[in-house]
Amino acid sequence: MIDVQNQMDHRNIRVDKVGVKDIRYPLTVMDKNNGAQHTVACINMYVNLPREFKGTHMSRFIEILNEFHGNLDIREVSMILEEMQSKLQAESAHLEISFPYFIKKLSPITATAGLMEYGCRVAACRDQNDDCDLVLEVNVPITTVCPCSKEISIHGAHNQRGMVRLAVRFKRFMWIEDLVQLVEYCASCEVYSVLKRPDEKYVTERAYENPKFVEDVVRDVAKALKKDANVLWFKVDVENFESIHNHSAYACIERHK
Amino acid sequence: MIDVQNQMDHRNIRVDKVGVKDIRYPLTVMDKNNGAQHTVACINMYVNLPREFKGTHMSRFIEILNEFHGNLDIREVSMILEEMQSKLQAESAHLEISFPYFIKKLSPITATAGLMEYGCRVAACRDQNDDCDLVLEVNVPITTVCPCSKEISIHGAHNQRGMVRLAVRFKRFMWIEDLVQLVEYCASCEVYSVLKRPDEKYVTERAYENPKFVEDVVRDVAKALKKDANVLWFKVDVENFESIHNHSAYACIERHK
Amino acid sequence: MIDVQNQMDHRNIRVDKVGVKDIRYPLTVMDKNNGAQHTVACINMYVNLPREFKGTHMSRFIEILNEFHGNLDIREVSMILEEMQSKLQAESAHLEISFPYFIKKLSPITATAGLMEYGCRVAACRDQNDDCDLVLEVNVPITTVCPCSKEISIHGAHNQRGMVRLAVRFKRFMWIEDLVQLVEYCASCEVYSVLKRPDEKYVTERAYENPKFVEDVVRDVAKALKKDANVLWFKVDVENFESIHNHSAYACIERHK
Amino acid sequence: MIDVQNQMDHRNIRVDKVGVKDIRYPLTVMDKNNGAQHTVACINMYVNLPREFKGTHMSRFIEILNEFHGNLDIREVSMILEEMQSKLQAESAHLEISFPYFIKKLSPITATAGLMEYGCRVAACRDQNDDCDLVLEVNVPITTVCPCSKEISIHGAHNQRGMVRLAVRFKRFMWIEDLVQLVEYCASCEVYSVLKRPDEKYVTERAYENPKFVEDVVRDVAKALKKDANVLWFKVDVENFESIHNHSAYACIERHK
Repeated sequence: MIDVQNQMDHRNIRVDKVGVKDIRYPLTVMDKNNGAQHTVACINMYVNLPREFKGTHMSRFIEILNEFHGNLDIREVSMILEEMQSKLQAESAHLEISFPYFIKKLSPITATAGLMEYGCRVAACRDQNDDCDLVLEVNVPITTVCPCSKEISIHGAHNQRGMVRLAVRFKRFMWIEDLVQLVEYCASCEVYSVLKRPDEKYVTERAYENPKFVEDVVRDVAKALKKDANVLWFKVDVENFESIHNHSAYACIERHK
Repeated sequence: MIDVQNQMDHRNIRVDKVGVKDIRYPLTVMDKNNGAQHTVACINMYVNLPREFKGTHMSRFIEILNEFHGNLDIREVSMILEEMQSKLQAESAHLEISFPYFIKKLSPITATAGLMEYGCRVAACRDQNDDCDLVLEVNVPITTVCPCSKEISIHGAHNQRGMVRLAVRFKRFMWIEDLVQLVEYCASCEVYSVLKRPDEKYVTERAYENPKFVEDVVRDVAKALKKDANVLWFKVDVENFESIHNHSAYACIERHK
Repeated sequence: MIDVQNQMDHRNIRVDKVGVKDIRYPLTVMDKNNGAQHTVACINMYVNLPREFKGTHMSRFIEILNEFHGNLDIREVSMILEEMQSKLQAESAHLEISFPYFIKKLSPITATAGLMEYGCRVAACRDQNDDCDLVLEVNVPITTVCPCSKEISIHGAHNQRGMVRLAVRFKRFMWIEDLVQLVEYCASCEVYSVLKRPDEKYVTERAYENPKFVEDVVRDVAKALKKDANVLWFKVDVENFESIHNHSAYACIERHK
Repeated sequence: MIDVQNQMDHRNIRVDKVGVKDIRYPLTVMDKNNGAQHTVACINMYVNLPREFKGTHMSRFIEILNEFHGNLDIREVSMILEEMQSKLQAESAHLEISFPYFIKKLSPITATAGLMEYGCRVAACRDQNDDCDLVLEVNVPITTVCPCSKEISIHGAHNQRGMVRLAVRFKRFMWIEDLVQLVEYCASCEVYSVLKRPDEKYVTERAYENPKFVEDVVRDVAKALKKDANVLWFKVDVENFESIHNHSAYACIERHK
């Protein structure tokens, strides 16, 4: 059977990335408290394609994925990338994995247990020098109370859910749990899945006493990350789903260290 | 050229709806204050298919759409449906049109003008007796302040953006503007696109003094609609994007009158 | 602490549904071949609210969810609904659970194993007479080749991915696996996650020899379900993401038996 | 009334971007054939925030937007950015505008007129040296026939809708219409909104005779752009919604010239 993909290409143009996108796949992820956790991922896998070849072999990406049986150990991502480079005879390989991750949290007063979901993403690539670059991203919902609204109003203050997206490059492995905690600490108040009335009272008062603009949240996250010598690079942005508008407030800080 | 669609079908099964879905189309909609307004719609068009025919003729739907040049006068929807019945030799015809609609609103204190977007939808069908059924839907963003949170807390109260979806069947034509106003009146406070500081003070205080659960909002909308003899049926639901949780609070009331 | 929700309401309007929406939750689902499978769900939980009460108690929904530890045995859904009725003193309870479900499939010629994802949904409610209604829905991607395009063209025929959504009510428990198989059998050809070249040849030729309109697919699914005495009701629709248009072709059949 | 935003900030961290996101707004865009066209946009507006200020003034963004009355002339985007820098006392300003754009196309044989929608995006920023950077993006749906499937199969070939996203930086103004045409020329065949049977025959045969991988499409687009001296930079990617899989095939080329 003819291998069309393997034919010569005469356009003399290399393709930066070629591969498969939006593959849904069950995944087991490392869990700081429980060893491992089951989730479901959306995966992209790409390699470069040299100028001389007509096409890549798409089915090999899925075969490589199947070899790893859906185990995602961040410390072994480099092995998957290496396998991609080797099986697809490529110089560079890219792997992007997005998945919901759950952390058990106790409500602040009654200590009622609940599961919070945090959208996570690992984006890794490996180049022709076998250097591996890895970015870990967490998406953390928070509450923000508007400092301006509080200051100028007789009582009350508008507040809303916000979403903080934090991406980091690091030296030594970092836990999702630790990044989430760092972000939640910078909010007007954390968000919970179960709140009984004494918890709701606490959350309301704590947030009101701790008003923050999107600018405050990104700066506080940035301040904490600048102190952490293990972090080489970070990008943090916050989107506030404003309760008084039908659009969002947004702020972003990115730093190489 | 053979007309495969026109061939006999021997399975003896009528198809309830067949047609085209998710057509994007520029649209001119009637505007209470300005006569007409330009927008962009997403359109579905279906007819029934009798048991004896193999298929419908998909291109005719788009041709009918083009005949009407993107003018949406709710009072003429019946004509489009009739054209669908006729051109596709069908007993019943269905038309669904979703579009963003803009209303100019002044902020409450400084009277700064801004444009608010409301997602709208018209769903109409015409049956073999030429009876026409039409549902008009508006999606209205609002602010809600939690009555429980306010009551139990020393200061502050959690609040958030909510989205009210109201669908109605009516006797005489109703303006989108009037449905939007009815809903906004039932919120803790309206949502605006521009708020200067005196406006933000007003909105914060008004919402705080007027706390509402999702249950309160749907009941207040229902109460207002029950009084309106022009409304034959309604369904109203509210989704609160809770600021203290990462999930929504929801309530729904549907009534035939 | 005051229980605002428990206060009397004087508007005299019952709320049809009130509760929590879009809760993300890890779930274990029954698997025909492997006993159980881990996935991640999106969950809605509602009850009715009698006219005399101001509000429901939202935190109890999550507590009930936590009691069941994320185990979804369709035969026990009624117990969750009963717990909702009891804990929230409600007459009716509604539970909606959406989740991706994975089935291992071998490619047709080389028998290469791959995982296919099918979006599933369980929607159940229990009324004041303790009657329980349950709908199971599967979303099955397929290939369709256009019979008209094949017939009128010298060579080739346009084809595309389609999505079949099948919802059923049944007497005795039905496996997701069996519903998926029934639908895939009605396509021009099944869709796979890994196809080597001999598989791709088979899939291309099989689909070309078996052209189907959206009308054909819904009719063939309907025909198969009409023969199954265990099925009490079904609704099947197909959306074809047309390769020659930027909109979809659509067909739908719903039958009570 | 206190201006909280204007207060000193002591964290000593500048914010890269702060502003408003996801504003829906009616827009008039330049149209090559008709002078102007009405559409509806989704808009983001950001500025930088120096280390010494606590916050930006969000309402001013919307006021600037209102000043321009929804007219988008790409050659005047720089004026909006300048106004943002000035009104918000910022060094840099960012504007992102996404909108559906419609082009009338005749079907290839019967010359039946139809409207095709192309998602477009303008992303512009202006820095402290008043240098302005502008990227124009078009999203073009196409048909692709798989060369491998055609080659190895007795008859037929799998094909599908693909989406090409092309972003360019240029010297002199470029029309959306010209970018769209360039991309459509590189597909197995163009996509249309209305096709009568003779058109469908043409489209089917033309696509079958012109098979292309995602790799071929990005290379052909890249080849055409490399020849155009007016283009300074481009990024083109193609996503094929594979008809034989439930995931996409993807390819991407980015070049500075």
